[in-house]
Amino acid sequence: MVKNIIVIGSGAAGMTAASAAKKTDPSSNVIVFTEDEHIAYSPCAIPWVLEGKTSWNDIIMHDPSFYSEERGIDIRTKTKVTAADGNAKTVTAGGKTYGYDSLVVATGGNVFRPPVKGVDLKNVFTVRTINDGKRIEAAMKGSKKIVVAGAGVIGLEMALSMRNNGKSVTVIEMMDQVIPRIADRDMACPVQRYLESLGITFILSAPLQSVEGDRKAEGVTASGKTYECDMVILATGVRANLEIPKMLGLDIGELGAVVVSPEMRAYRNSVITDDIFVAGDVVQCRSAVAPGPTMSQLGSSAVKQGLIAGKNAAGGCASSGAFASPWVSVIGDMHVAGTGLSEALAKWYGIDTIYGKAEGYTRARYYPGGTGMTVKILADVNTHKMIGAQIIAGEDATGRIDWLTDAIINGTAAEDFLERAENAYCPPTSMVRDVVISAAEDLCDRLKEQSKVIK
Amino acid sequence: MVKNIIVIGSGAAGMTAASAAKKTDPSSNVIVFTEDEHIAYSPCAIPWVLEGKTSWNDIIMHDPSFYSEERGIDIRTKTKVTAADGNAKTVTAGGKTYGYDSLVVATGGNVFRPPVKGVDLKNVFTVRTINDGKRIEAAMKGSKKIVVAGAGVIGLEMALSMRNNGKSVTVIEMMDQVIPRIADRDMACPVQRYLESLGITFILSAPLQSVEGDRKAEGVTASGKTYECDMVILATGVRANLEIPKMLGLDIGELGAVVVSPEMRAYRNSVITDDIFVAGDVVQCRSAVAPGPTMSQLGSSAVKQGLIAGKNAAGGCASSGAFASPWVSVIGDMHVAGTGLSEALAKWYGIDTIYGKAEGYTRARYYPGGTGMTVKILADVNTHKMIGAQIIAGEDATGRIDWLTDAIINGTAAEDFLERAENAYCPPTSMVRDVVISAAEDLCDRLKEQSKVIK
Repeated sequence: MVKNIIVIGSGAAGMTAASAAKKTDPSSNVIVFTEDEHIAYSPCAIPWVLEGKTSWNDIIMHDPSFYSEERGIDIRTKTKVTAADGNAKTVTAGGKTYGYDSLVVATGGNVFRPPVKGVDLKNVFTVRTINDGKRIEAAMKGSKKIVVAGAGVIGLEMALSMRNNGKSVTVIEMMDQVIPRIADRDMACPVQRYLESLGITFILSAPLQSVEGDRKAEGVTASGKTYECDMVILATGVRANLEIPKMLGLDIGELGAVVVSPEMRAYRNSVITDDIFVAGDVVQCRSAVAPGPTMSQLGSSAVKQGLIAGKNAAGGCASSGAFASPWVSVIGDMHVAGTGLSEALAKWYGIDTIYGKAEGYTRARYYPGGTGMTVKILADVNTHKMIGAQIIAGEDATGRIDWLTDAIINGTAAEDFLERAENAYCPPTSMVRDVVISAAEDLCDRLKEQSKVIK
Repeated sequence: MVKNIIVIGSGAAGMTAASAAKKTDPSSNVIVFTEDEHIAYSPCAIPWVLEGKTSWNDIIMHDPSFYSEERGIDIRTKTKVTAADGNAKTVTAGGKTYGYDSLVVATGGNVFRPPVKGVDLKNVFTVRTINDGKRIEAAMKGSKKIVVAGAGVIGLEMALSMRNNGKSVTVIEMMDQVIPRIADRDMACPVQRYLESLGITFILSAPLQSVEGDRKAEGVTASGKTYECDMVILATGVRANLEIPKMLGLDIGELGAVVVSPEMRAYRNSVITDDIFVAGDVVQCRSAVAPGPTMSQLGSSAVKQGLIAGKNAAGGCASSGAFASPWVSVIGDMHVAGTGLSEALAKWYGIDTIYGKAEGYTRARYYPGGTGMTVKILADVNTHKMIGAQIIAGEDATGRIDWLTDAIINGTAAEDFLERAENAYCPPTSMVRDVVISAAEDLCDRLKEQSKVIK
């Protein structure tokens, strides 16, 4: 019997799921419904397209005809799913109803629009789709002053992209530091100082109160003060898009996202489904470090989850471990990366932390072209398990944060990590003792001091 | 009672041990004896100094006066240890005899000189010390044709350094591939082709038979053919320097190096010593992947071992895990890295392997400045444990090989690695699904196929 597999959503999770399903069961019919006009592109690249480092065309990997011709997948763009019934096993889209054997829900998220006056004005933008990016590109031309609301990594990347386009840029942030929640203050501060040195203004502890203007945005009020501008970019976080999951009656968890099993199966009334799979920004998943669930709203997580959802939807067998959610952002000359819990998040979960930190270089001290590198590792002071890490450097933070991520997901104690840790060394690519290992050593020294104090 | 700690050797292991000992017990007397004129330098940097990328002065971190004034460590350069007695607990150097409470032996290794005619001729050089490097620098000036014996990473780095100085360079290698033993043929071939494209000639399966010439080297004969040259560089591997360990009666293992415990303690007649510690190129240590011991003759291993030896020599408490010995070499535009076992080494140990391989990019496909990246991961076909990995890329191989190293040392099965693996993603620093994870996926697919075949 030919299997009908329907995928809702064409982001990283949806497109990966569709390809994985077809690869797992080449005889299956795979249809993807998406409201988007473009598919298989990299939304993370938008800041760099706006800077001219790459182009809209280049960040689109494939168009729908590639999927139909090369992979035998049927893509329906600009097609909204208006109904989905988990009992009848049907999806209605574009006025027609389709039966499915397996359904993959990858409806992603929407940028959170703070519920304040003026957020729906013209010239208030989100950064999510290529069309969002193109709208910003068009508006930029006539704009001199731009306010970015939100100092998370997307906010900072957009702020710098606008600054590199010659704009006057002000970033307002509700919390009292940049990259809140996922970066510690001591690691976030250098990023803020660097962006300030490039001429970007930061207004912290300043929640967005209203967007001023009649027909278009002319200013932003935050913390009682108004900042004049010609356009506003909202980088205020992403909320799961629950319209379809609710139609299907899927269980929604405490984080406001769809509960899934390690096989990316959805639940209904606490019972696992055997035909509905969910992946990407719309799910909450197991955390490798926190006692509760987590949302891993990252492109890399969407691909990982989409692959598992797609394989399983086609009758394959795959599952996911818990998530530490490593991230990295390139902000001008700075690479900032993190994984697992920050100090603030750990505190929120009631975990007492201790940290180790080391400063060094990305290359041997004498080798030209290297930059500074700071590595910070957090451990649970009671279990000594490493639960988070952050890196700032001018290059090569990514592989190192992945290294720490693997150890953190494994529940490795700091002392075990140090005992085992080895680093590849060549003067142009690392210090003879990598800064990651020096940070682990500092952490172990502090844990030893700490245990003396306790005794 | 003030502790007397003597360190023999001023390489990475010895200098790290001296500093760690003094830091652990600041009241101790620490003396370092070394035959070398220079200390605390990076021998791995020699190829780049010869290319002019850095200088002899820059690769020396500190001079002896820094150690005496800043760290309170007494360094005796150009001082050969002529006797060492593990029963009397004395070391004789420069005509005087010194008592010790703890002894650290970090005598390193010597470049293996093949026992053939002519290897002791003038203009036949090794690459080990700054003075070696300076001798090569002086001889280079009058040389046009250079033969490098040995196509390991040091041989290749030196070959390219000489080529970049405008020399005609021929590399002869006993084995039938470059980077033998530690890299697989399919990963080594692109490196050879790249160096050939830069004008370097390779003669493989050609053991050095003799160096021709009366007073100075004028040619090299290998595999029955003679290659004319003005100078010869021996990059023929390093053998443990056992003179001092033999004087002390330390146990020498099957690899021709000193047997040590995880605390870097030596053994005498199979009994662990409590006052003699050994670190660096002179030791054989536990392998994380092979059934027997291994030699981890890398700068990074020397620092790791030296730190442990120094701490313990001063009454501290540290130990080392088993070694996977990750390495990386930057050869022009190419970063080549590896860890654990190669296919050839695994075969030698009787381990049946299976591999996964993926090709991709170091950055998002569309992001400017990225390069190709190939990742290969080897697993034991019976246990599914990952036992080795290799990477070729134009950048950023180092952190990724460290990531794989940690998983390999942990004895992680391929399927477990894939289930857990997450990567940080940003278009300028990785693909949305990192090539490392794609290689792991390929490995798991092949393992699945393999198990079908067996059934």
